[in-house]
Amino acid sequence: MLPKSVQNLIDEFAKLPGIGNKSAARLVFYLLTKPDYDVERFGNSLLNLKSELKLCPKCYNLTDLDVCRICNDDRRNRSLVAVVEEPLDVIALEKSGGFNGIYHVLGGSIDPLNGIGPEDLRINELIAGIAQSDSQIKEIIIATNPNFEGEATASYIKEKIALSDNEIKITRIARGLPMGGDLEYADEVTLKRSLEGRREIE
Amino acid sequence: MLPKSVQNLIDEFAKLPGIGNKSAARLVFYLLTKPDYDVERFGNSLLNLKSELKLCPKCYNLTDLDVCRICNDDRRNRSLVAVVEEPLDVIALEKSGGFNGIYHVLGGSIDPLNGIGPEDLRINELIAGIAQSDSQIKEIIIATNPNFEGEATASYIKEKIALSDNEIKITRIARGLPMGGDLEYADEVTLKRSLEGRREIE
Repeated sequence: MLPKSVQNLIDEFAKLPGIGNKSAARLVFYLLTKPDYDVERFGNSLLNLKSELKLCPKCYNLTDLDVCRICNDDRRNRSLVAVVEEPLDVIALEKSGGFNGIYHVLGGSIDPLNGIGPEDLRINELIAGIAQSDSQIKEIIIATNPNFEGEATASYIKEKIALSDNEIKITRIARGLPMGGDLEYADEVTLKRSLEGRREIE
Repeated sequence: MLPKSVQNLIDEFAKLPGIGNKSAARLVFYLLTKPDYDVERFGNSLLNLKSELKLCPKCYNLTDLDVCRICNDDRRNRSLVAVVEEPLDVIALEKSGGFNGIYHVLGGSIDPLNGIGPEDLRINELIAGIAQSDSQIKEIIIATNPNFEGEATASYIKEKIALSDNEIKITRIARGLPMGGDLEYADEVTLKRSLEGRREIE
């Protein structure tokens, strides 16, 4: 019943995660009220999205440079590596302002239910990086997500590194109550982790 | 810090209503996991969105035909016109399956706070349609939204039609409790309208 071009675009939006058919229709009708050049710029941004993108050969983050900005930055502490699941996690950690090391992007987490095993992630690349003769790595912070898959991935990596290198410190980001959170509403696992991870007040 | 093409697309998504910067980033990184041709199809859908689109010269709904499918459909009851604000409202009414007449799309509602007056809507076109010698219109259902602007628009149109034609029945869609709703949680205005609009049980 809808014009074909409208229905096509609704279908495309509806494929995105978290956007249902109704929201997709609303977005498209919103775009219909916008000037042609706005819609064209959006379309061209999509067409250009991947044209210049590649993975950084050092950390496997997305970049449009030969080596990504972070790996290329001399001020970063190369003895400290944060292992994350996805490029979005790099952005989150960068925004936190609490990290000055470099990254290693795994490309996901171990998720047997969805058929993703360790060999599908860039774990061997991490081990190879550590084994390099010019490696300056002293600590690896495993910053995978605090969920079942992320924890499993963290354990796997920890064991794997321990097998090949006993000198490197392997740490895990703290799990506990989120800032601004409320004890009363925290789930049991979070609360348990928050107790386990308690620290002396300085 | 992000590659330019990624940031550009995040900016475009973030301009859409209801999508913040974080959601926009998530959508873009989702698209990055998809094959190139999927992203290209999305981009081309945007570029093609408006190319074939025009307003139906009869009802002002969006169409890619000379006259829209509904106006062109001989089985529709031409004595009954639903006046709606936007093309999306046509879709909603069509989906309800409760309407077999034709439409008139106003292009918005009277909204003085945003500088939209009656002259910015297609109200004169509606009056002109009624005044045509071959008009078959017997009833006009004003189906603008049940909010302040929609009610103001409904009143305005009612008066305007009454000035030029006394034969036509002018009705307003019922306002009341939504199906599946709960009396206890209904707001006062809805409840009041629901009482005013009560009907004898048949």
